[in-house]
Amino acid sequence: MPRLKCKIKYDGSGFSGFQRQPQNRTVQGALEGVLKKMHKGSEIHLQASGRTDTGVHAIGQVIHFDSPYTIPDENWKRALNTLLPDDIYVDEVTEVSEDFHARYSAKEKEYHYFVWNAKEPNVFRRNYSYNFPYALDIEKMQEGCTYLVGTHDFTTFSSAKSTTKGSKIRTLYQVTCQKNGDEIEFIFKGSGFLYNMVRIMVSVLLDIGQGKRDPSDIIDLLEKKDRQLAGKTISPQGLYLWNVTYDK
Amino acid sequence: MPRLKCKIKYDGSGFSGFQRQPQNRTVQGALEGVLKKMHKGSEIHLQASGRTDTGVHAIGQVIHFDSPYTIPDENWKRALNTLLPDDIYVDEVTEVSEDFHARYSAKEKEYHYFVWNAKEPNVFRRNYSYNFPYALDIEKMQEGCTYLVGTHDFTTFSSAKSTTKGSKIRTLYQVTCQKNGDEIEFIFKGSGFLYNMVRIMVSVLLDIGQGKRDPSDIIDLLEKKDRQLAGKTISPQGLYLWNVTYDK
Repeated sequence: MPRLKCKIKYDGSGFSGFQRQPQNRTVQGALEGVLKKMHKGSEIHLQASGRTDTGVHAIGQVIHFDSPYTIPDENWKRALNTLLPDDIYVDEVTEVSEDFHARYSAKEKEYHYFVWNAKEPNVFRRNYSYNFPYALDIEKMQEGCTYLVGTHDFTTFSSAKSTTKGSKIRTLYQVTCQKNGDEIEFIFKGSGFLYNMVRIMVSVLLDIGQGKRDPSDIIDLLEKKDRQLAGKTISPQGLYLWNVTYDK
Repeated sequence: MPRLKCKIKYDGSGFSGFQRQPQNRTVQGALEGVLKKMHKGSEIHLQASGRTDTGVHAIGQVIHFDSPYTIPDENWKRALNTLLPDDIYVDEVTEVSEDFHARYSAKEKEYHYFVWNAKEPNVFRRNYSYNFPYALDIEKMQEGCTYLVGTHDFTTFSSAKSTTKGSKIRTLYQVTCQKNGDEIEFIFKGSGFLYNMVRIMVSVLLDIGQGKRDPSDIIDLLEKKDRQLAGKTISPQGLYLWNVTYDK
């Protein structure tokens, strides 16, 4: 059976996260509903590169599924977009070999996080950027970013509720932040991310920007491997799954 | 009683328009609900510079109301914003003289209209910009804009359902459009606007951009004074009440 890889965008505002739930509107539910319709009532299960939480957006989420149909990629794209609600959009469909797996074949992931950092909030960004009206020292935050780059045990920066049993060692290739107008954009690229990891890292970086922590405190936080030390998980609406990279 | 003028922003996506309705969520309903709470259950009625339809946004809507309270302007602003939902924001509160009227004292209004003009739609702009994926000749549209500037009878460009009994003569001071990246921004400034007028003008300008009409057809459309000739009213989500100007 042909295996299809899809690169999709979604506005997370109207979804109770990615993962299918019996009662709530989810991205997986919407996608599998459309696939079921296209397959005359047969259930088609999809796999994603990873879940996203309620309110989290995607610019480049990747999913795969198997279908008995042989349809040109462009027609798949058109058919899916015709049936999908207007807060999900399929950017690319590619037929891939059957050893491709959206989650297990992923080599690198990229997340962005946006913070609206102005005295007045922006009603139009409220679902798309975290509103933080207090003064921030961007240079200190940028210094803090540098300590996150590299291979570390990120236990301190992952949800205590995480069900991941395995290693909490991950490699971050890029961690940056910069202010464009009234908005701060954080970029995180890495081999993989633990549950809530980006949202906890941003929370600590904002503490640094406010002077509540020193940039180099990150070294200590990583060493201590204690989730309690990193403070709260920042809210989801500023977070975007930006890109997932696979071997060619 | 002190009269308060407020400049407000709102994301129109979650409202059934500005005007109060018994069953639906409206901007006026939300504002008057907060005023009632602040006035211990007394109804406080507000006046706006004009209504906006379902899905239409505001960057600079102006309202006024009378209150028995004497509170510094900054405290009014803080109190209102604390109680308002996060899709409405009060930018400015100013105590004004009792002859000020948000609607009747308005000298000039400005509307902007955004069109997402790319091959692929943008899920994040779907409530904020009209999706129009077809090729447009911006220069022709800009030429069309010039014929709208000036004092004209805008009967052709106003809703046939309009309840305005008076003159349909209005003066437009500025009509422009330009493309920034994948988005086209139209700007309309004028002495006043008839019901649906901006949305009908944009619809005709898109016809011109597609080559379905010539730019100079606008001269003829204005002369004919016939709503039937101008085609459909474009959808509301690209429209923003941008600014209302009053005498100092």
